[in-house]
Amino acid sequence: MSSVLIVGCGLIGASVGLALRDAGWDVLLEDAAPQVVGEAVRRGAGKPWEAGANVDLALIAVPPRVTAAVLAATQNRDVAQTYTHVSSVQSHVQREVEALSTDPSVIVGGHPLAGRELSGPAAATSDLFAGRPWAICPGAGTAPAAVDALRALIRDVGADAVELSAAAHDASVALLSHLPQVAASALAAGLLGAGLEDGSRLRLAGPGLVDTTRLAGSDSGLWEQILELNAPQVAPVLTELAARLTAVASALTALGGDPAPAEAAAAVSVVRSLLRDGNDGRALVPVKRGVRSEAFAPVRVTVSDEPGRLAALLLEAGGAGVNVEDVHVEHIPGRPTGIIELAVAVPDVPRLSAALRDAGWAVADQA
Amino acid sequence: MSSVLIVGCGLIGASVGLALRDAGWDVLLEDAAPQVVGEAVRRGAGKPWEAGANVDLALIAVPPRVTAAVLAATQNRDVAQTYTHVSSVQSHVQREVEALSTDPSVIVGGHPLAGRELSGPAAATSDLFAGRPWAICPGAGTAPAAVDALRALIRDVGADAVELSAAAHDASVALLSHLPQVAASALAAGLLGAGLEDGSRLRLAGPGLVDTTRLAGSDSGLWEQILELNAPQVAPVLTELAARLTAVASALTALGGDPAPAEAAAAVSVVRSLLRDGNDGRALVPVKRGVRSEAFAPVRVTVSDEPGRLAALLLEAGGAGVNVEDVHVEHIPGRPTGIIELAVAVPDVPRLSAALRDAGWAVADQA
Repeated sequence: MSSVLIVGCGLIGASVGLALRDAGWDVLLEDAAPQVVGEAVRRGAGKPWEAGANVDLALIAVPPRVTAAVLAATQNRDVAQTYTHVSSVQSHVQREVEALSTDPSVIVGGHPLAGRELSGPAAATSDLFAGRPWAICPGAGTAPAAVDALRALIRDVGADAVELSAAAHDASVALLSHLPQVAASALAAGLLGAGLEDGSRLRLAGPGLVDTTRLAGSDSGLWEQILELNAPQVAPVLTELAARLTAVASALTALGGDPAPAEAAAAVSVVRSLLRDGNDGRALVPVKRGVRSEAFAPVRVTVSDEPGRLAALLLEAGGAGVNVEDVHVEHIPGRPTGIIELAVAVPDVPRLSAALRDAGWAVADQA
Repeated sequence: MSSVLIVGCGLIGASVGLALRDAGWDVLLEDAAPQVVGEAVRRGAGKPWEAGANVDLALIAVPPRVTAAVLAATQNRDVAQTYTHVSSVQSHVQREVEALSTDPSVIVGGHPLAGRELSGPAAATSDLFAGRPWAICPGAGTAPAAVDALRALIRDVGADAVELSAAAHDASVALLSHLPQVAASALAAGLLGAGLEDGSRLRLAGPGLVDTTRLAGSDSGLWEQILELNAPQVAPVLTELAARLTAVASALTALGGDPAPAEAAAAVSVVRSLLRDGNDGRALVPVKRGVRSEAFAPVRVTVSDEPGRLAALLLEAGGAGVNVEDVHVEHIPGRPTGIIELAVAVPDVPRLSAALRDAGWAVADQA
């Protein structure tokens, strides 16, 4: 039986504990706050660390700023064969670890790309990492056996291992994760002081605003650390983003000020390039992991908003032999009906629509 | 029976036709492209316009740049009692209309805040406007009867009327819709030329990138017009956003360059303010229309990925008397299982979890 010591029982640490216990691991838990260990133990994430124990792998799941210090201190206690961590920033932690550790060969950096809006052991779930990437960033002196030990953990929590250098990791997440975080926070920050607080102007807000500002609800204390420690990678891509927006703002300022035709044409061209480049960039984004979204199309059905209607609808779909890939339920405030959107494989759309209509369901017209 | 002439049979025009026919209206259709009228008629959105007809309301659903000209030309044919349009920008169109029209009293601006990633009559659906806001922006000389006529249409397509001045509308959508569009396009544009095309670095992309760049997939031709015509309102808020990002980029540049302690503290403070203001701004965003999201919590169940499992799960929920507010299905590539998240009212979570466990379902541990 494999064994792990998890140091830090927040959302990530406790979720790893739950997932590894499901996979049959022996899980020991530590946290600077005893009540957090207690909560994680009650959730079933493992049992409290006892002095003298020795484990295969120690996983340090504490905030990035203290990761290297806690890792080195844990290694000094000589409790594990291999040491890893879960920091969102790899290069900084790797440099600190190599300066602090007496034996960096048994240390391998890791970063699960998973999370929730919630935090703490109470929000932990055993499936947090299922199907998610988990980066492996070995140091120059990391032994292959240490990498193998981390791979075993990643496999047993159901994640997908992605091995790359700390520098490549940090550059990638700067663009793919840290920059979207900053943009979302800046957009949401701009809503303050705009006279929206009474809510009436916010009635015009749509799903676009909800999507683009979702990340702004993230843990600001954690993100302050991530942005500070990955500043060398985030600064250049953020400078570029700010410059792009400044250029478009200048173009729109010109367009709003009764420009001469040549000036107007140049300004429109800046706006057009942004939008077209945005189309091209968006096409690079994997919308659904492993499945291209064009393979699915929605069938929309209006239903009464009461228990059991969704189940009955899906029973019909199952009866028609159609696998529903995704479901989206939209409630209409103040109305006794809702709209259910069933995403199914494109070839199944006509068959499902016909079957539902035959059974008396209110299927919306579709392309 | 009420009657409407819809000029422009794209996504919006054809969807209005479908919705009004469902509500018993007589719907006539026109479009500069005869094949577009033909497609809309085949979809059941109405019947082709015939010379000599006269309707209660003419709805101009063409791109913003040509809205005023098409509206004035339609009014010159004297075919309707009232004229409205669906432009995403109101002030510019209102000024043009008032310059072109012989009788602005029968004209009232309108803007349905609804849309899809798709366009054209083939993408039209009768429920596109259900529960969505539809702005009414009367001009200074608009007669009350014209506003009432538009209100009847909005009611019959199932939308919610929000009456406000053209200036207030344009300022609101600049902040709530046009600025998020520009930010999403700029973020997505930054993915080009970053060496992501081979896909391996994109394996680290998560749902945050997907959400923040979703709008970047929008129709760039339409958005070029919207941004140009609403430039006076978008320019100042975009200038402010660009300045905010520039300040954070400067702070991160300083942090990445081995700063003195005082400089580092000042830079961290800039980052912290952005993230905290982002938290506060995000709290203003209505996440689910009419329902505060804290009222619901998820119950997560691991199921085999085959037809009928979702239906069976929801039947259990219905049998337990629990109303499922929303459903999220997550497929795990390469694995024969999926995870289904059922959002239910918070007090229902323990009851539903217990009922599902009793029936043998694999319910994930929850807070």
